[in-house]
Amino acid sequence: MNFASDNWAGAAPSVMAALARHSAGPAPAYGNDAVTQGVIQQFRDIFETDAAVYYTATGTAANALALTAYARPGGIIFCHPEAHIQVDECGAAEFMTGGSKLVSVGGQVNGKITADGLASALAALPEGSAMHGQAAAVSITQASEHGTVYSLEEIRAIKAQAESRRLPLHMDGARFANALVSLGVTPAEMTWKAGVDVLSFGGTKNGCWCAEAVIFFNQEAARSFEYLRKRAGHEFSKARFVSAQLEGYFENGNWLQTARHANAMAAKLSEGIVASGGRMAWPTEANEVFAIIEKVQADRLRQNGAVFHPWPEHAIPAELKPSENEICVRLVASFATESTETERFLSLL
Amino acid sequence: MNFASDNWAGAAPSVMAALARHSAGPAPAYGNDAVTQGVIQQFRDIFETDAAVYYTATGTAANALALTAYARPGGIIFCHPEAHIQVDECGAAEFMTGGSKLVSVGGQVNGKITADGLASALAALPEGSAMHGQAAAVSITQASEHGTVYSLEEIRAIKAQAESRRLPLHMDGARFANALVSLGVTPAEMTWKAGVDVLSFGGTKNGCWCAEAVIFFNQEAARSFEYLRKRAGHEFSKARFVSAQLEGYFENGNWLQTARHANAMAAKLSEGIVASGGRMAWPTEANEVFAIIEKVQADRLRQNGAVFHPWPEHAIPAELKPSENEICVRLVASFATESTETERFLSLL
Amino acid sequence: MNFASDNWAGAAPSVMAALARHSAGPAPAYGNDAVTQGVIQQFRDIFETDAAVYYTATGTAANALALTAYARPGGIIFCHPEAHIQVDECGAAEFMTGGSKLVSVGGQVNGKITADGLASALAALPEGSAMHGQAAAVSITQASEHGTVYSLEEIRAIKAQAESRRLPLHMDGARFANALVSLGVTPAEMTWKAGVDVLSFGGTKNGCWCAEAVIFFNQEAARSFEYLRKRAGHEFSKARFVSAQLEGYFENGNWLQTARHANAMAAKLSEGIVASGGRMAWPTEANEVFAIIEKVQADRLRQNGAVFHPWPEHAIPAELKPSENEICVRLVASFATESTETERFLSLL
Amino acid sequence: MNFASDNWAGAAPSVMAALARHSAGPAPAYGNDAVTQGVIQQFRDIFETDAAVYYTATGTAANALALTAYARPGGIIFCHPEAHIQVDECGAAEFMTGGSKLVSVGGQVNGKITADGLASALAALPEGSAMHGQAAAVSITQASEHGTVYSLEEIRAIKAQAESRRLPLHMDGARFANALVSLGVTPAEMTWKAGVDVLSFGGTKNGCWCAEAVIFFNQEAARSFEYLRKRAGHEFSKARFVSAQLEGYFENGNWLQTARHANAMAAKLSEGIVASGGRMAWPTEANEVFAIIEKVQADRLRQNGAVFHPWPEHAIPAELKPSENEICVRLVASFATESTETERFLSLL
Repeated sequence: MNFASDNWAGAAPSVMAALARHSAGPAPAYGNDAVTQGVIQQFRDIFETDAAVYYTATGTAANALALTAYARPGGIIFCHPEAHIQVDECGAAEFMTGGSKLVSVGGQVNGKITADGLASALAALPEGSAMHGQAAAVSITQASEHGTVYSLEEIRAIKAQAESRRLPLHMDGARFANALVSLGVTPAEMTWKAGVDVLSFGGTKNGCWCAEAVIFFNQEAARSFEYLRKRAGHEFSKARFVSAQLEGYFENGNWLQTARHANAMAAKLSEGIVASGGRMAWPTEANEVFAIIEKVQADRLRQNGAVFHPWPEHAIPAELKPSENEICVRLVASFATESTETERFLSLL
Repeated sequence: MNFASDNWAGAAPSVMAALARHSAGPAPAYGNDAVTQGVIQQFRDIFETDAAVYYTATGTAANALALTAYARPGGIIFCHPEAHIQVDECGAAEFMTGGSKLVSVGGQVNGKITADGLASALAALPEGSAMHGQAAAVSITQASEHGTVYSLEEIRAIKAQAESRRLPLHMDGARFANALVSLGVTPAEMTWKAGVDVLSFGGTKNGCWCAEAVIFFNQEAARSFEYLRKRAGHEFSKARFVSAQLEGYFENGNWLQTARHANAMAAKLSEGIVASGGRMAWPTEANEVFAIIEKVQADRLRQNGAVFHPWPEHAIPAELKPSENEICVRLVASFATESTETERFLSLL
Repeated sequence: MNFASDNWAGAAPSVMAALARHSAGPAPAYGNDAVTQGVIQQFRDIFETDAAVYYTATGTAANALALTAYARPGGIIFCHPEAHIQVDECGAAEFMTGGSKLVSVGGQVNGKITADGLASALAALPEGSAMHGQAAAVSITQASEHGTVYSLEEIRAIKAQAESRRLPLHMDGARFANALVSLGVTPAEMTWKAGVDVLSFGGTKNGCWCAEAVIFFNQEAARSFEYLRKRAGHEFSKARFVSAQLEGYFENGNWLQTARHANAMAAKLSEGIVASGGRMAWPTEANEVFAIIEKVQADRLRQNGAVFHPWPEHAIPAELKPSENEICVRLVASFATESTETERFLSLL
Repeated sequence: MNFASDNWAGAAPSVMAALARHSAGPAPAYGNDAVTQGVIQQFRDIFETDAAVYYTATGTAANALALTAYARPGGIIFCHPEAHIQVDECGAAEFMTGGSKLVSVGGQVNGKITADGLASALAALPEGSAMHGQAAAVSITQASEHGTVYSLEEIRAIKAQAESRRLPLHMDGARFANALVSLGVTPAEMTWKAGVDVLSFGGTKNGCWCAEAVIFFNQEAARSFEYLRKRAGHEFSKARFVSAQLEGYFENGNWLQTARHANAMAAKLSEGIVASGGRMAWPTEANEVFAIIEKVQADRLRQNGAVFHPWPEHAIPAELKPSENEICVRLVASFATESTETERFLSLL
């Protein structure tokens, strides 16, 4: 009953098999090997466009470097107040970009910024004044940090606001696959067709051990990226080992199956908790469950071996805030979560 | 007959076996898992001291971040003109440290800086003058970029000069194991006992696919390192997969055996080339061979399937420079190099 | 009737006289001249302590460099949401510090952060977690951006919170003299005796043309500052011309007189506006007046030659917000403001 | 007899008069005043083109920010090994640009890089390889750090090499006027007509107390410069005081007269020293004299009140190196140097 995080899971069997398959024999370094070239073509097929694809070691690096490709002096990046880039990455985006400011967009709903909130934030920033700096990018997280998913309409509306100031739209896709299968749309529809300029594509949380990529849908913006990545120490010499993971990840649609499984496990947990009297801080739309349950329940679960983290309450909507006897917990399902785990969890509740 | 680079090799069987062994089941993220804790203890045992150990994604990151831990404003880092940090890392050290200057030390011999050369470089930099900036660190590469190895005496002499200005000594150990078995000393003797303050420990070139670590022998200097690493996007969430590689790397002294094998293959190549009339640009002391051979030889080898790179001639000592009919080539042996490959190479010569 | 800003004023006669007095003849560069040495001693006398004093070209540079002296990787600086460093300096603090995050403290009152607000902000930041970064400094502005002044008690209470996390307290003193005479305390009392570690001391807005200094009350923290300043291009070669300004500024207590005059002019404006039916968005405690008046009044004043800027309304307390017929305007008095100007302004109202 | 440096001189009378003239009364801040607008137009008239002009506080800032406008990730800036940006600015260019590497060009003559030397340096840097970084700019100093002056032909030849890699050419014009009158050409001829893209225009060493400007001959490259400058704290609020200096500097060709005077004084010193048996380390072509004299002469001069600095000998051509009884000294003439000073100096020799 381990629901601590999807990054506590190991690697999926198809990923390990591909790693083993490609581990021997010489191959050109720095991504010039056949496996890597094949996987890059797969990315282009999956996204139905001639994207520029670059691996990085972590999602934090993918986010920070993607934003650096669009950095401006005195640049301001708009995001959700709970965005991973804002609160969980030790200022990586600020550092890599040479000192950008991350401004939290107000008026957000269910863990997502809104086009209206973004419009207000942009309106508060005068254009053309060096004092105030300049808008540089908008970043959204799909699936969001609160387990919800932006609809295509929401992404398009945010893009429209960004575009009114000629700003690129970045998507932090640490849980890209979970969002994708939740919406039931294509990768192209959820990204460049909806206005996304650059994507942090995450494979690690969904069955790889270390497979993250920055994907530019606009090749021109990627012009200096190899240099940005190299000077940040994020170019793997034996890149084939990332590619191998992704080969195993993509083959037979495995990545969509693992995401569907994780989402289904989360949905089951969510439904079961509500059925037993708990409530959700935010709707369960991907593989994360933010449940407000009784403290005694949480204690009982833990004593019986369940592993999960409490979740800070400041972002929970006022009308849903936990009472003194309650606690908000985060439960994360992954490709490795088993039905028997969720069933046991719910029965203990 | 692939001698292109040790980063063209795959992963050693013991490394892959350990990866497979630890790939399933939940484990705490960010290095709080049992495998990682075990490997960190192994590092401490191997180095016979209570070192602080941090993984990074690449050797470039290890070098840049290690030096950042000692960065000073207007800081100057002294190194060999052909050091990897100076010419092969896209300014990573300059970037990460916030703009340090890398000053090449003159008077170097066989790919190694000398204590005298360092003394001259230091003497040319006035102390206490903000105009000129301030010395911040000395960095050496072991084994060097020219396939040679610093003796313990050489390291100690360099350290003495560094210490005269209270400067830390960094060792780029991308080929640490190759140097270690070449000298036949202990890891402690080749590092902190000789004055090394911080080490970039590389496993990738010697049989891992991605296992690099920054090792501080002075815990105090590591104080902020977790933050430095995190904001650079170099903290793996599923750190156990690096640890697993290292577990396989260290077990049964495997890392020393692979290094010995690579060095032996290089020695065999070197001897064979000299026997057949070639000469060495620098002595072969680890797993890299810098051979000056005839162009027709090089062509014949390539036509028969040998893979290797030409090497720029500007650093070769004047008396050894290739003639018009000659070329300098680099041959790198690795754990995966087979005797039959070197034999065939030499017979073709 | 020019109330646009105190940086629209010229230079005070005593400042210009001192500049003229010291303009000829050779003098050592980079602050090694007698005038500079004398002024540094004056600073130490004025602040009753052995402070380290460094000129910079602008207040923005003073703030950014002062904070850089205390920078930490993944560092977070706490300040008012309307602080100059947060909204008016184009990300200078973020840039100079290598990517710090400036976090706005909530619960602020009258343009000032509160100790309680700071305590909450600090409580929301877990200690020792590289994900979240680390607290690095607290910055307050004295007088504040809303024309109010922190009492000694308020400063001490803020310092107590800062100290609970071992954080330095920075004071942006762009209008230091205005605050000082408003409180009627000594420079020592308003700074290090109340817990301020480093001060941006501004002379420009109060009668100099360009005289800003970073003052460290803790010499140890200034250790690398000459290098920080030099690499930012803020070391004047002909430093005596800054010193000359300050000599004229300090002589005969001129700086306190100009500040008292400016404050008095502001108070007169404030009282007159209230008497004629206007109201203050925030109390007038230094040389800035934030008045909510009728739009027709503002138009009439402008038509008759008054110069002033409107002020954004988002920070005004709800109960004071301007109606549709009203506007918030900022009126700034300076050493150069004449009584006849304020009288004419009020009579036109 | 003060020949220590031209930055030991005060401010020229016409500069002080203009400062006094513009010191009173309100004027828009941040360069929106009439004096500044007038001076910017003067710059455009002087340079015969529609240049973009930005003040900075120091020459160091002008250089670093000018280069930052052209910065690239992993960027390499080519310059003379003794360039001010390379050895006297505490890594400002490295810092501001986010970690560029400054590579010294070999084969230099008389304090100047050569087109051939630049060609070699460029040839040594492979294009399109992220490992090695990428060329970003070429910087020359006019007049050079050794008191010599690039001819128009030399500048054009360097530009031709730079252009072969699409690199901008930066000119550090800390002593721009001295070089200009030495060549007897127009400002346009010595800059954009010869291929200079961006100029650090220095007024401080030639009679201002603080008047430095970055001048872009290509408006497009200046696009983000206001932000770059602001975030570095180099935008003066009371910019009119810089403009006033420049108004006095330019009026009646004063700047050319002061430069001619300084150069003439240097020439007189140079000739006198040679006549009395000394020799020049480099030809005297502007206002700096690098003389190799006997130590007893230097001692005698000092005892009689002459002020000057010794000069490090490592860059002096081998055939001119000082003997044991000799010393290399730098003598700098300025607008303030009097004929009687040089005469007395020579008579003491």
